[in-house]
Amino acid sequence: MRDALKAAIRGVRDFPKKGIVFRDITPVLADPVLLRETVERLSEPFYEQDVQVVAGTEARGFILAPAVALHLAAGFVPIRKKGKLPCATHQASYALEYGTDTLEMHRDAIKPGTRVLMVDDLLATGGTMKACCDMVQAAGGVIVGCAFLVELTFLGGRAQLDPHPVFTLVEYASEEE
Amino acid sequence: MRDALKAAIRGVRDFPKKGIVFRDITPVLADPVLLRETVERLSEPFYEQDVQVVAGTEARGFILAPAVALHLAAGFVPIRKKGKLPCATHQASYALEYGTDTLEMHRDAIKPGTRVLMVDDLLATGGTMKACCDMVQAAGGVIVGCAFLVELTFLGGRAQLDPHPVFTLVEYASEEE
Repeated sequence: MRDALKAAIRGVRDFPKKGIVFRDITPVLADPVLLRETVERLSEPFYEQDVQVVAGTEARGFILAPAVALHLAAGFVPIRKKGKLPCATHQASYALEYGTDTLEMHRDAIKPGTRVLMVDDLLATGGTMKACCDMVQAAGGVIVGCAFLVELTFLGGRAQLDPHPVFTLVEYASEEE
Repeated sequence: MRDALKAAIRGVRDFPKKGIVFRDITPVLADPVLLRETVERLSEPFYEQDVQVVAGTEARGFILAPAVALHLAAGFVPIRKKGKLPCATHQASYALEYGTDTLEMHRDAIKPGTRVLMVDDLLATGGTMKACCDMVQAAGGVIVGCAFLVELTFLGGRAQLDPHPVFTLVEYASEEE
């Protein structure tokens, strides 16, 4: 199964800039069998974890997180770019290559003790996910883990997310793999 | 059921600007029962329609479209803002209040004859969805319908999407409803 996923993911050279191999998961999403397998396998480690909500971050985190939520009979909480959510929010800032960006989550979305699974499509440096985890914890949420379809292990994102359990389906050890 | 959904949706006054009542669906998404019911009921009219892919547009269209795709045993195709997709794309431009914006879809995502269901969270004026439908049709896709959780009927979006079948779960006849 992991081989079928990896075989379907396209490496696109020099996107979005020279030297980067972009891991394009759209062929996985477009295939009904691979889409289902992705959601089932991302959910599997958390079946006995009493996940109450699955959080996903705009935009690509919105693709898999709600489907995993449905599979785990949990709710979905969107983490959005600043200014998009209409009610009172928690905020988290994280560093970009130049400057910072801010993400928001509704204050009523996660109560103290809520068990939260974080889902995104790809783990790179982990900066965005770490900011999201910090925000969820500041709200009192208990993070049961972070699950990703793809992990770029050579960028060290997993260490950033310590001590949260990190679970990934497809790993790349270098840009060239 | 429709009442439970409507009861959960929050009207937030003067967001994003004065005079607008923003229909906030995040309480529906956060509730496992309402999330499941939303996905099932958006899928239901299309069970016998041989849907091959469900298309959703960045960012909020990414929330429900992949879940509906899973429910219909279809694939998911993301329609993204310009410059986000790494491979060759079709493009569609649509009018904003000031200027225009451009959306893209991978060229290999929809082949001539592919049966496509369009899913988004909210139908307002229909401008974005119309641009997406036109792009899918230009690629040779056959649109079996457009499904939305919420319809703001007073904005006339349904007529914009003619002759595509439009299916919505919760309707608002005015800003004040």
